[in-house]
Amino acid sequence: MPCSCPQIDSSFSLQGAFSVTQSITSDLLRPASYVSGSWHANADGQVLLDAVYGRPVAVISSEGVDFGGALAYGRKAGGLLRRMTFHERARALKALGAFLMERKEAYYALSALTGATRRDSWVDIEGGIGTLFSYASAARRELPDERFWPDGRVERLGREGTFVGRHLLVPREGVAVQINAFNFPVWGMLEKFAPAFIGGMPSLVKPAPQTAYLTERVVRDIVASGLIPEGSLQLVTGEPGSLLDHVEEQDVVAFTGSAATAAKLRVHPAIVGRSVPFNAEADSLNASVLGLSVKPEDPEFALFVREVAREMTGKAGQKCTAIRRALVPSHLVEAVTEGLRRELAKVTLGDPARDDVRMGALVSVEQRERVRETLEKLQQEARVVISGEAQLLGGDREKGAFLDPTVLLCENPLTARGPHELEAFGPVATLLPYDSLEDAIHLTKLGRGSLAGSIVSRDRAEATELVLGMASSHGRLLVLNRDNARENTGHGSPLPQLNHGGPGRAGGGSELGGLSAVRHHMNRVAVQADPTTLTAITREFVPGAEVQEDVVHPFRKSFDQIQVGDSLLTHRRTVTEADIVNFAGLTGDHFYAHVDEIGAREGIFGKRVAHGYFLISAAAGQFVSPAPGPVLANYGLENLRFIEPVGIGDTIRTRLTCKRKIRKDLRPGETRPTGVVEWRSEITNQDGALVATYDILTLAERARDGFDPPEEMLSEEGGSAQA
Amino acid sequence: MPCSCPQIDSSFSLQGAFSVTQSITSDLLRPASYVSGSWHANADGQVLLDAVYGRPVAVISSEGVDFGGALAYGRKAGGLLRRMTFHERARALKALGAFLMERKEAYYALSALTGATRRDSWVDIEGGIGTLFSYASAARRELPDERFWPDGRVERLGREGTFVGRHLLVPREGVAVQINAFNFPVWGMLEKFAPAFIGGMPSLVKPAPQTAYLTERVVRDIVASGLIPEGSLQLVTGEPGSLLDHVEEQDVVAFTGSAATAAKLRVHPAIVGRSVPFNAEADSLNASVLGLSVKPEDPEFALFVREVAREMTGKAGQKCTAIRRALVPSHLVEAVTEGLRRELAKVTLGDPARDDVRMGALVSVEQRERVRETLEKLQQEARVVISGEAQLLGGDREKGAFLDPTVLLCENPLTARGPHELEAFGPVATLLPYDSLEDAIHLTKLGRGSLAGSIVSRDRAEATELVLGMASSHGRLLVLNRDNARENTGHGSPLPQLNHGGPGRAGGGSELGGLSAVRHHMNRVAVQADPTTLTAITREFVPGAEVQEDVVHPFRKSFDQIQVGDSLLTHRRTVTEADIVNFAGLTGDHFYAHVDEIGAREGIFGKRVAHGYFLISAAAGQFVSPAPGPVLANYGLENLRFIEPVGIGDTIRTRLTCKRKIRKDLRPGETRPTGVVEWRSEITNQDGALVATYDILTLAERARDGFDPPEEMLSEEGGSAQA
Repeated sequence: MPCSCPQIDSSFSLQGAFSVTQSITSDLLRPASYVSGSWHANADGQVLLDAVYGRPVAVISSEGVDFGGALAYGRKAGGLLRRMTFHERARALKALGAFLMERKEAYYALSALTGATRRDSWVDIEGGIGTLFSYASAARRELPDERFWPDGRVERLGREGTFVGRHLLVPREGVAVQINAFNFPVWGMLEKFAPAFIGGMPSLVKPAPQTAYLTERVVRDIVASGLIPEGSLQLVTGEPGSLLDHVEEQDVVAFTGSAATAAKLRVHPAIVGRSVPFNAEADSLNASVLGLSVKPEDPEFALFVREVAREMTGKAGQKCTAIRRALVPSHLVEAVTEGLRRELAKVTLGDPARDDVRMGALVSVEQRERVRETLEKLQQEARVVISGEAQLLGGDREKGAFLDPTVLLCENPLTARGPHELEAFGPVATLLPYDSLEDAIHLTKLGRGSLAGSIVSRDRAEATELVLGMASSHGRLLVLNRDNARENTGHGSPLPQLNHGGPGRAGGGSELGGLSAVRHHMNRVAVQADPTTLTAITREFVPGAEVQEDVVHPFRKSFDQIQVGDSLLTHRRTVTEADIVNFAGLTGDHFYAHVDEIGAREGIFGKRVAHGYFLISAAAGQFVSPAPGPVLANYGLENLRFIEPVGIGDTIRTRLTCKRKIRKDLRPGETRPTGVVEWRSEITNQDGALVATYDILTLAERARDGFDPPEEMLSEEGGSAQA
Repeated sequence: MPCSCPQIDSSFSLQGAFSVTQSITSDLLRPASYVSGSWHANADGQVLLDAVYGRPVAVISSEGVDFGGALAYGRKAGGLLRRMTFHERARALKALGAFLMERKEAYYALSALTGATRRDSWVDIEGGIGTLFSYASAARRELPDERFWPDGRVERLGREGTFVGRHLLVPREGVAVQINAFNFPVWGMLEKFAPAFIGGMPSLVKPAPQTAYLTERVVRDIVASGLIPEGSLQLVTGEPGSLLDHVEEQDVVAFTGSAATAAKLRVHPAIVGRSVPFNAEADSLNASVLGLSVKPEDPEFALFVREVAREMTGKAGQKCTAIRRALVPSHLVEAVTEGLRRELAKVTLGDPARDDVRMGALVSVEQRERVRETLEKLQQEARVVISGEAQLLGGDREKGAFLDPTVLLCENPLTARGPHELEAFGPVATLLPYDSLEDAIHLTKLGRGSLAGSIVSRDRAEATELVLGMASSHGRLLVLNRDNARENTGHGSPLPQLNHGGPGRAGGGSELGGLSAVRHHMNRVAVQADPTTLTAITREFVPGAEVQEDVVHPFRKSFDQIQVGDSLLTHRRTVTEADIVNFAGLTGDHFYAHVDEIGAREGIFGKRVAHGYFLISAAAGQFVSPAPGPVLANYGLENLRFIEPVGIGDTIRTRLTCKRKIRKDLRPGETRPTGVVEWRSEITNQDGALVATYDILTLAERARDGFDPPEEMLSEEGGSAQA
């Protein structure tokens, strides 16, 4: 069974998608599974038809795949991935994204067979590859170059400070099993793979059969790239068989698809018995609300109409996030209907590989049949106001899965149930009239949990009321108006930085959301220790830990020589009236608390005090090492708090301790390798009382090392540096 | 059925728990349910026996409780709670904590009936009330005084900055159903109630029947206090009946108890079908590891022995977090056994109300029977090395649920299964010898997921290796050594600030952890909008939003008058060589990049540049309003980044914009009401390029208002203020 030779090898390449639509079908694809380090395909299996002409396109089968073995293999392979730091994983992901982007045309060609237009495919293919870049960038910017992720602040757990705690996130030592839907064969895989990979978990992907040949094509390239550790990505095309029986405590399962299937999988005995986290994203009855404040002549009116039409027809309406319910102020229902009629009349239907086609086919005729059945049921409480049979530009109207856009109107949406419960997963939407914002909010909630909602309004108060009212039942909310019309990405587009998922009907999960999706793949553990041990574990200095004092000034050490805990206690300086007066004169800051004896006496300090900025400047004067050396610049500061005022005659001194180190990669054209060193600075007065505490960010030279891909450096933090 | 009069009213008070143990049992308690705003008790029901003498103590029944009605009532009542801000909820929680603390002796008296010593009860009662204070304090310190919680940073979603996104957390609009275990009738309720309340969700508590009379006693006081909105807390004593059939999409369910029951509840059709979040905390086979580096004469050796003995006997070993597996270097097994023998010999058994009793009874004789059965099974792979029958100090050896501490030794822990799978939920632990840290880590993982683990070692490298190795399978890890011995809170004590929960066998949930537990009760929604709308929604200034400029300087406005978006663009200032030289002289900061023409030319800026601290000081000179006024002081600064260097002859100006406002309560003795105003400061140069950006924290006077409970103010942020 294992390793029968796959039918499409990695040199398979397609030129000109339209002709391909016809030629491929004469030579069936046999998308294989990639498990335990090798490819498995079978001669027989389920025959898939293309969506446009209804011709056989592929044969798919997972017969003979050893699922338990694949999971065990993945868990073992995870060891390699876990040995990489977050930054190493991020660099691999970025390189992989570039590698796939160069091969995108092959994916576009296969995508047309699934019924997708070039524009639909762009979302799937380039949007999918974009998630790799997005996670790579977030990990480089926000995570340490370590194998664990210190989370949140250090908690002081005892009065004396000898007992402290902090949370760490570490990779789960299992496999991320990812069961995907048919509508986004590339994006659906990569949006789950990316956060799992950054989190240190290998993925086992199980795409929906209908479009698995496209997923398989991408996985072939990923495997061939050699850019990620072997075993970080496995693929099962065909039936999932006993896959879930083998999941264990350290695995996770993520599912995208219908709410019914989600409910079925969620109760699988292995998932339940071993407390395997199960994340579901299910399609939902998403609403878009046209604000009460909008007039027909406002740009927002046209924006709403265009957005509804676009959401109905993009991917032929086969998006979990598409607008199914369009909430319209009652007095605007007619105008909106007219607008939609005009907008939808422009939609051309046919072979998606043609440039003049705006909407392609549904994924299969079975899927079309389901949509038609739901449309039928919806008509018990709503009537069709827009439909039609457009002329087809290529494709086969019956054997291809074509369906014309249909708009319904439900006159009594507050009492109807169908529009809030039945999802026609195709180019179908229902208009729901409403008369008050309260009703609009209530109507959106009748969907019992949605992935996405939108509000079209430029009235900030109205938008605020709607957003806060709808927030508890949505995963994402878009406010659309003339101010962001050009840059906004639309109602239906999840973004890798933002949450994608929603409560209730939407599955209760969360697939995306930047680093919060990475967290799904990690275990969060609270670590309690003494400060010195916690410093050793987290490699971040914890106040109260032992420090190392050296004859060498810490600023004379390179990035590589500086150690967390290296510390300097400066000489003292008495703050004089002259200091305060001179500082006021030089900076122009003549605030009464510093220079006005009368005002200051009546103020909160009861006396003239030094400028806060004088204190941190004088502290720099205490700890700086003036001659050129490895510490190049102070480029920022965090967490500054002034604790005790410093008056005339008070004497300050400063303790500077290395808090943490962050290695930076070279930018293009840069020759001097550097790293960020964060220093804890504590200014005390003559009584030993803390006057001010803060963290200083410096840039320090480091030695050259082997792997230095050109990368943006400080630009990620917001720019260059200033000493 | 409803509202039969309860047997213990709120004036019921107990003096001297020992005598009480005997008197109460002659007058049966009838712990009632509190649902839909009234009390329900029944004359008949399940009879509960006290743990010490085996006498009937209470009759319990939920017969006649309308569960669906209770949940509907709670959902409606949630409206009141959601109208409170986080700070208002925090103040209510703090007041409630103080109210209950005054009544604690009544709880101690009832607690003795459950078999708990005064020390055991302290953890339950005062530890439980402590969680109220802890959450109140965290909410005041870290959450805004709003009804929603802006989460994470503003994400720029388009190049031009007209399209931005941010996450908000809002309360789920349902009920938090909380099903608790018998061992901590007070803490178990309050540790779940507190984060739900802060998150804005009403609770419905279902305690385990065995000890529900104590829970009920506390709920009576909470209801009588009038300190929280009616409906924020409901109670069901007795069987849960159809409760879970009625949960809906916006509800959440949290369960503490056995892994088997968790698995049963998790698949309830309403929970699954409506995607109701289900959080489980199950007892687990927790391990403590004595480091390989420890010698018998080290303080750590004695600490380990004491900790194991304490965990075995505290609450008679009935803790989900107790040490069940003691991992000991092979060569120290004998010494540890001897140490434990000596330690356990000191443990006196008997009526927990007596001062001379160190260990009380298990909760019931049924529970003791279960422990004995498990002990039996454990002996297939381990042998008893310490046991005994101590003389009883009060209590009834047979009718009371007494059990002597028992220590087993498993010689082949790498191949044995029992010690890693079978939990004797009583004063029982098994010694597991090991020879390498790798083996120790592997052994801990054979528990397949634990709530807590501990490592006794002062060797930082050893502790680091063990912590990182054990991290993926634990919810909390304690490193114990001489440095934190005095302040550490022990292996088995969850803390409200830290995660409590664990993967796999431990249930896969998370009950505590400060604000992360609050998040379980909220929905996280991504909001996408233009900057002006996002500012209006979040009441935090988003860069790119419209600002308001006024003839009145923003520093001349009180906290109440300042509006988010109020903005000031200052006059310009040309930075001269004299400025740089004078600043160096005044501060003592003669870093070469500022004062050494030769070094600076060769440095990263290629020329002499102004000190970064001069720029922010000069910016203050530009925007400060010198005369006494409502803005009292600058007490801190965040997010400072130097972006472009400023050289001699460059000209800077500063824009200051109100970013956000945080109202502060008065501290005891304070008379001047204030608030924190956060300002975004942006320094630009003559080309309009950003030179530096940062956020300034100021203290501003506000008008007096109605509700001003004395509270710590700036001390929460770390102290007083400095202009």
